[in-house]
Amino acid sequence: MKQQPPPPPLPQSQPPSLSGGGGSAGADSEVTAIAGTVSSRPPLYPKPKTPSFDKDRDYIGFATLPEQVHRKSVKRGFEFTMMVVGESGLGKSTLINSLFLGDLYKNRQLPNVEERIEKTTRVEKKTMDIEERGVRLRLTVVDTPGFGDAINCEDSWRVCTQYIDEQFRQYFTDESGLNRRNIQDNRVHCCLYFVPPWGHSLRQMDLDLIRRLHRKVNIVLVIGKADCLNKGEVRKLKERILQDLEDNHIQLYQFPECDSDEDDDFKQQDRELKASIPFAVVGSNTILEVAGKKVRGRQYPWGVVNVEDAEHSDFIKLRTFLISTHMQDLKDTTQDVHYENFRAQCISQISQHALRERGKLKRDSISSTNGFDAAISETDRLLLQKDEEIRRMQDMLTQMQEKLKQTHLMEMKKNDSVIDV
Amino acid sequence: MKQQPPPPPLPQSQPPSLSGGGGSAGADSEVTAIAGTVSSRPPLYPKPKTPSFDKDRDYIGFATLPEQVHRKSVKRGFEFTMMVVGESGLGKSTLINSLFLGDLYKNRQLPNVEERIEKTTRVEKKTMDIEERGVRLRLTVVDTPGFGDAINCEDSWRVCTQYIDEQFRQYFTDESGLNRRNIQDNRVHCCLYFVPPWGHSLRQMDLDLIRRLHRKVNIVLVIGKADCLNKGEVRKLKERILQDLEDNHIQLYQFPECDSDEDDDFKQQDRELKASIPFAVVGSNTILEVAGKKVRGRQYPWGVVNVEDAEHSDFIKLRTFLISTHMQDLKDTTQDVHYENFRAQCISQISQHALRERGKLKRDSISSTNGFDAAISETDRLLLQKDEEIRRMQDMLTQMQEKLKQTHLMEMKKNDSVIDV
Repeated sequence: MKQQPPPPPLPQSQPPSLSGGGGSAGADSEVTAIAGTVSSRPPLYPKPKTPSFDKDRDYIGFATLPEQVHRKSVKRGFEFTMMVVGESGLGKSTLINSLFLGDLYKNRQLPNVEERIEKTTRVEKKTMDIEERGVRLRLTVVDTPGFGDAINCEDSWRVCTQYIDEQFRQYFTDESGLNRRNIQDNRVHCCLYFVPPWGHSLRQMDLDLIRRLHRKVNIVLVIGKADCLNKGEVRKLKERILQDLEDNHIQLYQFPECDSDEDDDFKQQDRELKASIPFAVVGSNTILEVAGKKVRGRQYPWGVVNVEDAEHSDFIKLRTFLISTHMQDLKDTTQDVHYENFRAQCISQISQHALRERGKLKRDSISSTNGFDAAISETDRLLLQKDEEIRRMQDMLTQMQEKLKQTHLMEMKKNDSVIDV
Repeated sequence: MKQQPPPPPLPQSQPPSLSGGGGSAGADSEVTAIAGTVSSRPPLYPKPKTPSFDKDRDYIGFATLPEQVHRKSVKRGFEFTMMVVGESGLGKSTLINSLFLGDLYKNRQLPNVEERIEKTTRVEKKTMDIEERGVRLRLTVVDTPGFGDAINCEDSWRVCTQYIDEQFRQYFTDESGLNRRNIQDNRVHCCLYFVPPWGHSLRQMDLDLIRRLHRKVNIVLVIGKADCLNKGEVRKLKERILQDLEDNHIQLYQFPECDSDEDDDFKQQDRELKASIPFAVVGSNTILEVAGKKVRGRQYPWGVVNVEDAEHSDFIKLRTFLISTHMQDLKDTTQDVHYENFRAQCISQISQHALRERGKLKRDSISSTNGFDAAISETDRLLLQKDEEIRRMQDMLTQMQEKLKQTHLMEMKKNDSVIDV
């Protein structure tokens, strides 16, 4: 049963009126109120309006559900963990500081050459609690100093994958436990992978590592220190990188499809973001004054690189995507795809282990009964078979979901073109 | 590290500008835009604005996180299940229809006396998909016809508690399974418990049942057919009921505390709602015209009861609370409190059972071949569980196939109509 309100109900922002009489807040008074807000004080987070009973007889009121969710999310606050991977000298720390306007690496001591060769890759975790317009975020940046410095890359790789798996395992333990109300989510929601600008494409070691990571974590590829490349060079490098990824069947984090009912501005922004992958970025913690305006930039004899100028680098696109538009989706994809994969593996390991244990116990108990072993191995086989079937069905479901999405997209495009005509 | 933007940044609604230059949408143009929306077309759900990069150097951008959550929740849609409990004749069906403006009980046949005595309490589940301002809700109402009609109340009670437990158990199975992406949440999020208006307070049977339910489900107490009570009588009945609940240490659903930073209107509304518990309601599916306005009401020789007039009954308060302000909290409380309680019991039972099994197996291992049976029954259980999961996935596949077909059909129809034009 679909209900659509025939007479346009008033928007939510009218004052709540529980009583039967009075209170007909018209469009005029509403506009005034909003104008007042704009001019008088800075808005906190765009707070949902007080749900109020609508006099309209055809209005039930559950349209406020998204706002109820919104409200709760603000109260709860947010968590986000980002891993930064790439050899030293690519501007990782500077970029993180530029992204979050912080100074996470205040007391950093750069290691000398000997230390770099001897030392193994470490994991360095920094957490900061930041607040913006009433929205609280606990941001964790996982850095891997020493990455790629040692002669043997295997070590660096293991450190990354192990860290990610450990967080998943911890979450799995917490989630299986009894007190689940305050589980801290330390899972890595995104891996910023830095590619040097001076190569011609991805190196074999990049491909090898990305291949180990791409089913565990959302990888976002970034070309560091891109101010040493001119526009043409950036374009070429991006093309080659994308080609390499395709040839090697590597899936970076996939932007979700834009909904057909999004406004045009959002769609346009989404297209621009997608077209910029991998992001070629420049970071800077130096504030320069250009034409009377203060900007984060880098001063060269031939001019100033304005980090936040879209003509100069993709920094602002990376920030928009990573923080303002897709942070929640990165979290959801971590939960729904990467963590679920990990969990499925865990469960299958556990049940196989349990079966073996039981089998051993059984064999000890009656070494004579041959039928017993046969029965165990038979049920083992059956269980494995069913596991396989479930896995297969999951694949099918994913495919069909993809298909539905595609149909939806085609639908959208068709609608678009109709509008164009 | 707390960051508060010192210069007031512009609100989110300005057009997105990824590029460095231009685009200074002032306050004036914004107000005009909003006024335009008000006058021209009805707003869908209050959609979060396109997140756009703020030129302000001190703005990171994660303040859009609640909007990202908002957007996703709208895409996903909502589910809500309500159980309605109370003996017949208290206006349960009428109230549900009045609340959701539907006609869930169109073809209802009232049972005769004999049927009422013979029949045991049944569970009747009705689901409707409704949409309001772009927000989709799958509403399930679980009715218990025959409740309290039989001579032995124990039967009615068992039906209610069993139903709630079964839904929890199903969710527990689903949540423990491998494919968790599309779990349907059929748990009972709220129990509307109807008290007759003609008693002097709660009866012993009310207290007994509520005591069995209050740790399993959010109970919302409602005095049905309250139009047979005058204001003084309503007040007295409410007082006595609350006293009874307190004396018997029964906890109905607790309104969460209002945040200190909520606006005054919201706080005032919250206070009014809290002060009205238990809600004394009147439902009606009859539309009457009073002073030129159409209202849901009941015509008496001495006047018209306007269901939606706060002076006449608490109906509008109940609806505001149940749907517009606290529906999400009812769901969250179900998940965080009632379901977690159930889950903890389950886990403790399972581990106790496993311990016993293993002990038995060890004891038997030396003496006889009994352990064999235990092992078989355990693997049997595992196999059954997997079968159940496969069945569930099959259902999902069928549903999706159906959906795909539907989309395809619609597509075809659309094409047809385009050709017609």
